[in-house]
Amino acid sequence: MTTLQNDLLLRTIKGEQTDRFPVWLMRQAGRILPEYRAVRASLSGFKELVETPELAAEVTIQPVDILGVDAAIIFSDILVIPDAMGLPYQMIKGKGPWFENTIQSKEDVQRVTEKIDVADKLSYVFEAIKITKKELNGRVPLIGFCGAPWTIFCYMTEGEGSKTFSKARRMLYQDPELSHELLHQITEVTIEYLRHQIAAGADLVQVFDSWSGVLGPDQYSEFGMKYVRRICDAINDVPVTVFAKGAYYAREELAGLNCQTIGLDWNMDVAESRKLIGPDKTLQGNLDPCVLYADFKTIEQKTKNMLNSFGNQRHIANLGHGVYPDTDPEKVKCFIETVKEFAKN
Amino acid sequence: MTTLQNDLLLRTIKGEQTDRFPVWLMRQAGRILPEYRAVRASLSGFKELVETPELAAEVTIQPVDILGVDAAIIFSDILVIPDAMGLPYQMIKGKGPWFENTIQSKEDVQRVTEKIDVADKLSYVFEAIKITKKELNGRVPLIGFCGAPWTIFCYMTEGEGSKTFSKARRMLYQDPELSHELLHQITEVTIEYLRHQIAAGADLVQVFDSWSGVLGPDQYSEFGMKYVRRICDAINDVPVTVFAKGAYYAREELAGLNCQTIGLDWNMDVAESRKLIGPDKTLQGNLDPCVLYADFKTIEQKTKNMLNSFGNQRHIANLGHGVYPDTDPEKVKCFIETVKEFAKN
Repeated sequence: MTTLQNDLLLRTIKGEQTDRFPVWLMRQAGRILPEYRAVRASLSGFKELVETPELAAEVTIQPVDILGVDAAIIFSDILVIPDAMGLPYQMIKGKGPWFENTIQSKEDVQRVTEKIDVADKLSYVFEAIKITKKELNGRVPLIGFCGAPWTIFCYMTEGEGSKTFSKARRMLYQDPELSHELLHQITEVTIEYLRHQIAAGADLVQVFDSWSGVLGPDQYSEFGMKYVRRICDAINDVPVTVFAKGAYYAREELAGLNCQTIGLDWNMDVAESRKLIGPDKTLQGNLDPCVLYADFKTIEQKTKNMLNSFGNQRHIANLGHGVYPDTDPEKVKCFIETVKEFAKN
Repeated sequence: MTTLQNDLLLRTIKGEQTDRFPVWLMRQAGRILPEYRAVRASLSGFKELVETPELAAEVTIQPVDILGVDAAIIFSDILVIPDAMGLPYQMIKGKGPWFENTIQSKEDVQRVTEKIDVADKLSYVFEAIKITKKELNGRVPLIGFCGAPWTIFCYMTEGEGSKTFSKARRMLYQDPELSHELLHQITEVTIEYLRHQIAAGADLVQVFDSWSGVLGPDQYSEFGMKYVRRICDAINDVPVTVFAKGAYYAREELAGLNCQTIGLDWNMDVAESRKLIGPDKTLQGNLDPCVLYADFKTIEQKTKNMLNSFGNQRHIANLGHGVYPDTDPEKVKCFIETVKEFAKN
């Protein structure tokens, strides 16, 4: 085991006093960097990059070298899980993910609930983590991740992105039992997936519930939170972060999860969130990613306002959503530098 | 003036005690009805229907005849405003609205801030309202509507639907002054538009802020609420309903608006919303539209739960979002009948 040279993130998660806030960005490994686009241009598509461990490792490390973030997050996609379960996806330019086959019936669910060999099917992710860890050589911690079961369920039933995910939500009302069966199976595969990521070297993991916000409070509790809780209960050897975008109504319930960090989106008022979640979790977020379209002075000011709103409490600086692909890397650096220079009071 | 035979909606808005809750559905005039699809099939497209007053009136009245709702809402689109301001839209099948030209610069804003003749440009809407009023002959009140300035700004700058409206939000950070100039102009045209709708016969009006949820609390207050407030302050002769979808964080501020009714989306907890908004507004909503995909028994049960959650208070039964186009009309009738038969306690 290599000792971490920069363990600011992990110490913040534990609630230790630190001199400054750690900082990283969701989607930091990606289209914002010209160096990423150069790697990507040499390939047939997004999926080839995800499935080629050496290149996935390369783009994972780019933001550490170029932007100076306090953590790397493995370059991958939440949709590798449905893919491994037998529903391959394509990334269509200007449109997003698209699945040729979706889950509509009991037979469809049975087809994807057959036991799969996660170690084999997703070996490219674990290999990418191993290479990344070796090349990072202890500079910063490496974050592994997965989609939350509800979010994966959305794509498996809807087959593509949607503003309302009404087909996915329809299934919850039309066949709650079948929905639970599918969510259960996604959860089992996801837990195994995270365990392999940790075995390969992930220092912490984040669960992305990107579409929690399309469910009302009762349904999120029944079909969303329930399975996030199972994941949190199953992963005990590294810290877990839960980011349930849009689930503002669930903040008190999130506080009860067996996880260390809760992500906030840019709509969530920080003081109110801290009050609802209590003092025992580290909070992560939540600058509006669109702030990075502003001039440098505005970015500095809004970043400082955001840091002040968290006060001297357990906080990982981040955006409240993934960084948008057309953001100028110099603006991203400005955000990172502002966090690094911010004197905790 | 014809006397209204069914004034349940207007009495509920005034806070009078009534025997039952009034009920209507957002998007009730539309694709859910085979009778609508028959009218639509004879035309070149959605826009032709919007712009042909006799047909717009016909599809406006269909849900009153067929579904038995307590109000009609004029068949139109919020995008008639950018269209009148010089940015024509197209409705693209399977995709939604699309604008050939969008607002990106000061010059673009100047082009759309030239004075337009609202009475002439949008005469087709006012004509449709007049015909509808005549044909309704006082059976139920007629609702006029508009998009909130922020939501219209979203389409004018982004040029199409989006999950994040990051281009629209980018402009707020890059040029707040220009953004306010555009929002101001949209607001002026919208107020004139609503006044003409009221003169033509609209008994009340609803402001749809469909994309308030992409803004954080501070930005919504500055760029969203500010202009909704102006509209509310300008319209005094008929009741006004404000539906700010996703703006959960703004409920207390919404309570201060000079309007009578606040719409709730299906994510908003009813008891909490009533507490935040106080007793002086009528609340409208908020059944999850996906409930109408369930079986009849579940629809009845969930509708009753929703009505119970509002208690014996000022409440207009509706969905928490527009009815989804593939909903079975028999399921919609079940929702409506359940509301009508519900004994207020």
